[in-house]
Amino acid sequence: MSGIARELIDRGVLHETETVYGQGRPSVLLDLKPECAFFIGISLLEDPAPMILSDLNGNIIARQQLPYSRDPKIIANAIAYGLPEILKGHPQASSKLAGIGVALSGFVDEKQATCVQSTLLGWQDVPLAEIIRQASGVDTFIENDAKAVAVSEKLFGIARDTPNFSVVSLGDGIGCAHVIDGRLYRGNHGGAGEIAHATIEPGGAPCRCGKRGCLDTVASMKAIKEMARAACLKCTSLSDLEEEASLGTAEAIAIIHKAGAALGLAISHLIQMNDPGMILVTHVEGSFDGLFGTVVQQAIEANVLPRYAGQTPIRTRRVDSDVWARGAASIAAHNFLIGPNIN
Amino acid sequence: MSGIARELIDRGVLHETETVYGQGRPSVLLDLKPECAFFIGISLLEDPAPMILSDLNGNIIARQQLPYSRDPKIIANAIAYGLPEILKGHPQASSKLAGIGVALSGFVDEKQATCVQSTLLGWQDVPLAEIIRQASGVDTFIENDAKAVAVSEKLFGIARDTPNFSVVSLGDGIGCAHVIDGRLYRGNHGGAGEIAHATIEPGGAPCRCGKRGCLDTVASMKAIKEMARAACLKCTSLSDLEEEASLGTAEAIAIIHKAGAALGLAISHLIQMNDPGMILVTHVEGSFDGLFGTVVQQAIEANVLPRYAGQTPIRTRRVDSDVWARGAASIAAHNFLIGPNIN
Repeated sequence: MSGIARELIDRGVLHETETVYGQGRPSVLLDLKPECAFFIGISLLEDPAPMILSDLNGNIIARQQLPYSRDPKIIANAIAYGLPEILKGHPQASSKLAGIGVALSGFVDEKQATCVQSTLLGWQDVPLAEIIRQASGVDTFIENDAKAVAVSEKLFGIARDTPNFSVVSLGDGIGCAHVIDGRLYRGNHGGAGEIAHATIEPGGAPCRCGKRGCLDTVASMKAIKEMARAACLKCTSLSDLEEEASLGTAEAIAIIHKAGAALGLAISHLIQMNDPGMILVTHVEGSFDGLFGTVVQQAIEANVLPRYAGQTPIRTRRVDSDVWARGAASIAAHNFLIGPNIN
Repeated sequence: MSGIARELIDRGVLHETETVYGQGRPSVLLDLKPECAFFIGISLLEDPAPMILSDLNGNIIARQQLPYSRDPKIIANAIAYGLPEILKGHPQASSKLAGIGVALSGFVDEKQATCVQSTLLGWQDVPLAEIIRQASGVDTFIENDAKAVAVSEKLFGIARDTPNFSVVSLGDGIGCAHVIDGRLYRGNHGGAGEIAHATIEPGGAPCRCGKRGCLDTVASMKAIKEMARAACLKCTSLSDLEEEASLGTAEAIAIIHKAGAALGLAISHLIQMNDPGMILVTHVEGSFDGLFGTVVQQAIEANVLPRYAGQTPIRTRRVDSDVWARGAASIAAHNFLIGPNIN
């Protein structure tokens, strides 16, 4: 048994369930004790901001909503006021609350403490974790949205046994995060995974970042809806657009093809560059269930080195609005279990 | 002093040069003893195949050439026959020969033993390291060309203190390798760094891989020369083409722009995806000294998220024909020093 497993058993986090005899040394099956620690997860990506209470297995025990704000102190105070409320009726969680995690759109430093830059929140170098810790009295860790989902999948989800994988999160914006050798890979300036601003259509549509043809301008849900509006289609969601496309409306088909081909091309670049063991595409609005999903898959296959095409598993998952808050809680759980960013 | 340093001192590889007193514990400066081990490096990328003898600091002590072959057994026998020749007059190297390294174009397994696939050599699953070891009696390790250069730069070169960096090698083909957290990152199928077949011009020129618009079809030295030939320019090298461009010949300028913009765009994708701490572009024929280099740099800057543009150091280095053989020797040295693929 490894040193870390022994230490976690001593801390009451792991427990031995069974001894298995086979080839080599007998091995001991270990299991997390879900009730040995509890975590708060908060998503600053939505208005109002979801707040959940989870156990060590990622099960959601309670939930509530916080008023949305872009002011760090107001956010911290809202969390501090919300804590007794969400813990009410969960005495075990109250006594074993081990950390708060916060997911946000932006760059976060490797200590998971400071938001280096967030366009959406209008922040630069905001030490949010410490501000929340001071207001709430609970250890706090913050993380970029896609990176939080990657950690969540590594800890509790389908990537538990995959040392190298990437998450691509498709919503109003597009996020991406890499886990390499079991660890979150941040890159040199925390910028790893910024595929939203890879130039996918050189000379294409102007982007709010200052350049043109970014993936974000053509494949994000926001961009798709904008293109539908510009084409005077009465579609306020991708489902509407899929419906139009299924009726044969040429503009709807063209928009879906344009967006899907761009996302597929970007994912093919990710495969050519990094050869991940899996790519998990999380999406809202069921966006992979129709023509869009077909075009994305087709564009990936068409742009990967033919003799390796189809060898990288692409998993798609429709996510509910809990995904970011659950990811946030997993950041706190990860720090509790094995410290920041360690395999 | 760390355990590994102590072990290497005991093995006579490191020696203590000076004790430095300052803040904290006194630190001991350590230096490699270059004459404690010697290595053979062979490049299968050229005809004839360069073979070098190097010390532990990467200094080249002797060199010779082997007849080129694509037959593994003929290669192994040529190496075995060449060994006494290259060691002649170097008795210290003869008694302390610690390994052979071979660089080749293709995919190599993580044990650095088997060539999984090489189009250039026409190989599939060739256990080249073992074949050479049997013929020569010397421990042998093989590696992909760009990955060998990356290890060489990490061990002996400008990347000694850079944990995350990528090498892009520009020659007749285009190679790429990533070092992440101080370790060579191979990806899941050994395909990490395959930017040569990233689709940079969707619907572009047909590529021998089976798809279209691969970076290789537009930015490799081979592609540049092909484009010059197709434009009926009397240019047999990039230098000729640069000369034509400097005279204002529109086709020459256009070809250089097309190739440079494609390479710059691919490098910008690498930055957006992975945010490396440095990119080293190795090139032959002085290809970065003129307009081509300017266009590449300009295209990188124009396609990186504006607020991060210019923050990734791009080093360019003109390489001589020793680069692959020296990289190959460094693979053997790396295995001797710290085992395969370890930080």
